[in-house]
Amino acid sequence: MFWGVRMNLKKKVSLAVVKRLPRYYRYLSDLLKMDIKRISSQELSSRMGITASQIRQDLNCFGGFGQQGYGYNVEFLFNEIGNILGLNNDYHAIIIGAGNMGQALANYTNFEKRGFKIIGIFDVNTSLVGTDIRGIPIRHLDELESFVQENYVDVAMLAVPFEQTPIVAERAAKLGVKGLWNFSPMDLKLPYDVIIENVHLSDGLMVLGYKLNEKFEFIREDSSKGNDGNS
Amino acid sequence: MFWGVRMNLKKKVSLAVVKRLPRYYRYLSDLLKMDIKRISSQELSSRMGITASQIRQDLNCFGGFGQQGYGYNVEFLFNEIGNILGLNNDYHAIIIGAGNMGQALANYTNFEKRGFKIIGIFDVNTSLVGTDIRGIPIRHLDELESFVQENYVDVAMLAVPFEQTPIVAERAAKLGVKGLWNFSPMDLKLPYDVIIENVHLSDGLMVLGYKLNEKFEFIREDSSKGNDGNS
Repeated sequence: MFWGVRMNLKKKVSLAVVKRLPRYYRYLSDLLKMDIKRISSQELSSRMGITASQIRQDLNCFGGFGQQGYGYNVEFLFNEIGNILGLNNDYHAIIIGAGNMGQALANYTNFEKRGFKIIGIFDVNTSLVGTDIRGIPIRHLDELESFVQENYVDVAMLAVPFEQTPIVAERAAKLGVKGLWNFSPMDLKLPYDVIIENVHLSDGLMVLGYKLNEKFEFIREDSSKGNDGNS
Repeated sequence: MFWGVRMNLKKKVSLAVVKRLPRYYRYLSDLLKMDIKRISSQELSSRMGITASQIRQDLNCFGGFGQQGYGYNVEFLFNEIGNILGLNNDYHAIIIGAGNMGQALANYTNFEKRGFKIIGIFDVNTSLVGTDIRGIPIRHLDELESFVQENYVDVAMLAVPFEQTPIVAERAAKLGVKGLWNFSPMDLKLPYDVIIENVHLSDGLMVLGYKLNEKFEFIREDSSKGNDGNS
């Protein structure tokens, strides 16, 4: 791997734009599958539900290959965004916690397509230790330190119980793991030089709730009270 | 329940702001737990890592209770945001797919705190059918139609295999389920009057990857090639 070289090729883009890139990346990959070679910001806008001007603003970060009357070269744009996101890297990830969420993550093959290879899974449940998921062995959490010292681990995906999360996160950070992807519903913060992405599943659910509330009149019979919302 | 009344109390806020509300809501709930009664936009800014002006802009949507020199009344703001998000509603949700992700969702008690009560779980795996998770019975997917007809179901959480997702989603939408929360890595779209929130787990991972790449020099020995990134 020539990380150094790749680093030099990477462009600098604002994080606000970066956060929208995965979505562009997915849509462009769909276009490629449909063998669509080029697309205008207007077409992309109607597909993605983002304004064309927002799209032009975002994609201007990647230089002037969106040409008047031509639009965007889908494959070029796809590859450029992949480069910016560093998807051609191979990160080594471990999963800490092999409960339902941890196992769901271990079975989520998409991560490998994004450059994240899961090289280890850890749990304290002795009935799980020694088994494997997709060929990845589940080790006892006691082995975390020795494993991380012997293997390159860039990212730890944390899928442990809420109260265990800060403890396990600190152990991983102290070992020099560079990134933590936390699935416990908390904004994990640590006094270490580690990048933390907190996943808040219920945030998306709350937004869904808002849209439901906005769109639908929730007037319905209430079986518990036996009257309806109008009364 | 007096849905009609609650609907009339709800304020209208732009979706861009709404998407940030769950985060405010979480931080304010932490402040309440710490018994903090009021907070300035500056303090909130440093806690949340959002600019104070962004915070003021966002929270202005809720009228003028952020006063110069006083700041925000934490409890009032917390309740207002909860109202906007409709968290005092009780939505009835079902989970379709009782694999690892479905079971993780079923065990995620936070959803109830957000007003989403899981009233049913469905799967085709006969070894799961008849068992329950936290007292919620797992039914065979064949019972979906009769269950939804007999019970109010606002939201279906879809945790089924990729290729099954559009099929199951259409079944739920045809039954009048108002919202779909999709965990398959696809932008699900349906020709029905249903609100769809697609969860793209790997989007967050890609952003984490970008931050790692930006912050750390990934020069390291490559065990597979036995040379280092500089060579």
